Amino acid sequence: MAARAGIVVTGTEVLTGRVADRNGPWVVEQLRELGVDVAHIAVVGDRSADMTAALGFFASEGMDLIVTSGGLGPTADDLTAEVVGAFQGRPMVLDEVLQERIAEILRPMVARWKGLDMDALEAGTRKQAVIPEGATILDPVGTAPGLLVTPADEAAGPTVLVLPGPPRELQPMWAAAVQTEAFAAATAGRTSYDQQMLRLYGIPESEIAETLRRAEAGGIDLDTLEITTCMRGGEIEIVTRYEPPATATYEALVALVRERHADTLYSDDGSSVDVQVADLLRARGWHIATAESCTGGLIAARLTNLAGSSDYVTGGLVVYANEAKTALAGVPPELIEAHGAVSPEVAHALALGAVRALGADIGIGVTGIAGPGGGTEEKPVGTVCCAVATREGGVAASRRLVIPGARTDVRDRATVAGLHLIRSVLRDEQPPSEPLG
Amino acid sequence: MAARAGIVVTGTEVLTGRVADRNGPWVVEQLRELGVDVAHIAVVGDRSADMTAALGFFASEGMDLIVTSGGLGPTADDLTAEVVGAFQGRPMVLDEVLQERIAEILRPMVARWKGLDMDALEAGTRKQAVIPEGATILDPVGTAPGLLVTPADEAAGPTVLVLPGPPRELQPMWAAAVQTEAFAAATAGRTSYDQQMLRLYGIPESEIAETLRRAEAGGIDLDTLEITTCMRGGEIEIVTRYEPPATATYEALVALVRERHADTLYSDDGSSVDVQVADLLRARGWHIATAESCTGGLIAARLTNLAGSSDYVTGGLVVYANEAKTALAGVPPELIEAHGAVSPEVAHALALGAVRALGADIGIGVTGIAGPGGGTEEKPVGTVCCAVATREGGVAASRRLVIPGARTDVRDRATVAGLHLIRSVLRDEQPPSEPLG
Repeated sequence: MAARAGIVVTGTEVLTGRVADRNGPWVVEQLRELGVDVAHIAVVGDRSADMTAALGFFASEGMDLIVTSGGLGPTADDLTAEVVGAFQGRPMVLDEVLQERIAEILRPMVARWKGLDMDALEAGTRKQAVIPEGATILDPVGTAPGLLVTPADEAAGPTVLVLPGPPRELQPMWAAAVQTEAFAAATAGRTSYDQQMLRLYGIPESEIAETLRRAEAGGIDLDTLEITTCMRGGEIEIVTRYEPPATATYEALVALVRERHADTLYSDDGSSVDVQVADLLRARGWHIATAESCTGGLIAARLTNLAGSSDYVTGGLVVYANEAKTALAGVPPELIEAHGAVSPEVAHALALGAVRALGADIGIGVTGIAGPGGGTEEKPVGTVCCAVATREGGVAASRRLVIPGARTDVRDRATVAGLHLIRSVLRDEQPPSEPLG
Repeated sequence: MAARAGIVVTGTEVLTGRVADRNGPWVVEQLRELGVDVAHIAVVGDRSADMTAALGFFASEGMDLIVTSGGLGPTADDLTAEVVGAFQGRPMVLDEVLQERIAEILRPMVARWKGLDMDALEAGTRKQAVIPEGATILDPVGTAPGLLVTPADEAAGPTVLVLPGPPRELQPMWAAAVQTEAFAAATAGRTSYDQQMLRLYGIPESEIAETLRRAEAGGIDLDTLEITTCMRGGEIEIVTRYEPPATATYEALVALVRERHADTLYSDDGSSVDVQVADLLRARGWHIATAESCTGGLIAARLTNLAGSSDYVTGGLVVYANEAKTALAGVPPELIEAHGAVSPEVAHALALGAVRALGADIGIGVTGIAGPGGGTEEKPVGTVCCAVATREGGVAASRRLVIPGARTDVRDRATVAGLHLIRSVLRDEQPPSEPLG
């Protein structure tokens, strides 16, 4: 039986959505890569009874390991260490070495602040150094230590790994945690898995369901594969996880997907369209520029999100007002007058204007109606026109979409559509067809 | 005793973080506004045993209502209706009226696609119309119906509200769900709460902890308030939830926060800096423009994120390459040569260039080293310079920050810092001090 783990993400701010949880799924991925099976993430508010209930649920489910994130700060609503100590039957004790370690970390920060309340700081430091007796301490990355806490009665249940909430503290600390004896002991039963991802753009999810049915009918034993499909931003992801003996089965499935969906399967190694566009630009030695209206900078932000993007991004124009379209991207006012700001003609002019204004090799222009206002019968909310042009060839590809959903959905999906249009031009392909609403 | 609810978010793609969950926290907020107490969100993969365990946990915790999201699609890994039916002791039956309703919804979509597999589509439609006997049906927003399923044995436990995964389907369906008799019956014990938010920018969280200790010492009964503090993007949010009799206590706390943190408390009604900037621009009748290097369009994207932003956003420049800084924003090459692209001088020139190039009333310039490469001893990774200029007054404010964390953290926090700098200029205030790393 494989080692199993559950994750408890604490924090009322996460429960109520003011902060999006980035830790739960990240820890799941790490555990899965280690061959530990994870079935649940529990998100709980900062109330000790609720945290205790979640720990009890995972213990009753027979988990070998529970990972918690958050609730290690200096404020009174940070309860995790105390709750885990009580759950494992261990009294709380002040660790003076740890207290001094935290004070040492704070010293340079303290120096930068004027008029800081030193009593407040010391109370916080002391609180963070009170830990369950016998816990394995993980050195702070920020100011909070991590903890590995085994049950006081050794036969009694899962080991709890306590990690801080900020991802930039949790992630480096994870590397230290997996090196500990307590972690190795808790996850002794782990097995190894492979995981692969296919990405498709431009077909509805029902087509994939049918492909899976045909695979099964054709003798591919899907029971040995754990397959998840999901649609987001108009893209479909098929993630498959399997034990090594099922490799040939997975390859047979990939061959079938490739045969049935040759024109929409754009990634068989899990690489995103962002990474593919970056690689294609690097391979040609090209620089890209943008001219965005409805996406308001989102495409430029995506293109500059990868480290090293200055190798292939020149820059961009956000041309929200019509005057800006004319002044920056050189779109003739008569063109806007004749066809409207949201039109294939203006998208073409924007793409050409991006290339020209930034001296780029390739440019994208996007204009649309993100809503909620501004729609007409002919051009409803969600209407988006995008075009890609190259310095040498002029307009190379163009699309008109009607994207359903709210303002954010329209902006996000228009961004994805834009990236795919860029990719298709860089690969000298026909642009993808319009995805199902 | 207040009505209590738990939320089950299904989907291996959510569990493993390929899709961020937007439903759990959204439903929590809706329930809290209705006066229903929510302690847990459980995120589970697409495995029926794990879903059943989560339902069982919530039932054992005495929940009155369980809300599920996801797992209603046409593919075989969409299991929710079946799992909930079994959990409530209700057999699955085909609802032919519902089947026809779904087919009718699909017809116009089908017409837009060439070569669609009609058998696949019909199998998917049929699957989505097989529901637990006696369930209350909520009309599809996309193609999946929602369901309210009570236990077959009426004394036996919580009502389960089954909702689809895409937020743009779930959210409109929620409004229909709360109107049903089954929902009203399940949440009969609800009480009413008030919830308020304070936002601060530019102090460490330990200062707030001390303020809360002083509040308590000064006789403010914090036990009647449920207070959550959290830090993100350099901002602190203090959210307080309380029953109406505790209103005076909350007001006493607000008065203390205002007294101790007058210079950093920027919002006492929960309004975000984005909304405040929008309101301030509207009040002056001003238009804003951006010139961004390291943030690569993120500030423009934030400024254009609110509906109606064309009232006050002219547009922006993404000037990633130095040549773009010169060509678009008119930054003299000698200035870059003399001070480096990341310098207060270049930030000033960018802010002025944004105003000039876009004919705006106010402009922001941002330049920095997002990393992971490019840092030096003098200008480490995370160094960000930003400046705000107005058409009439030239450079009005300027800041240099060193932001800790990864590339994404640097870009996100630089964006927040930029918005606060804009706000301070629009309010004729001194810019905020540098927040604690």
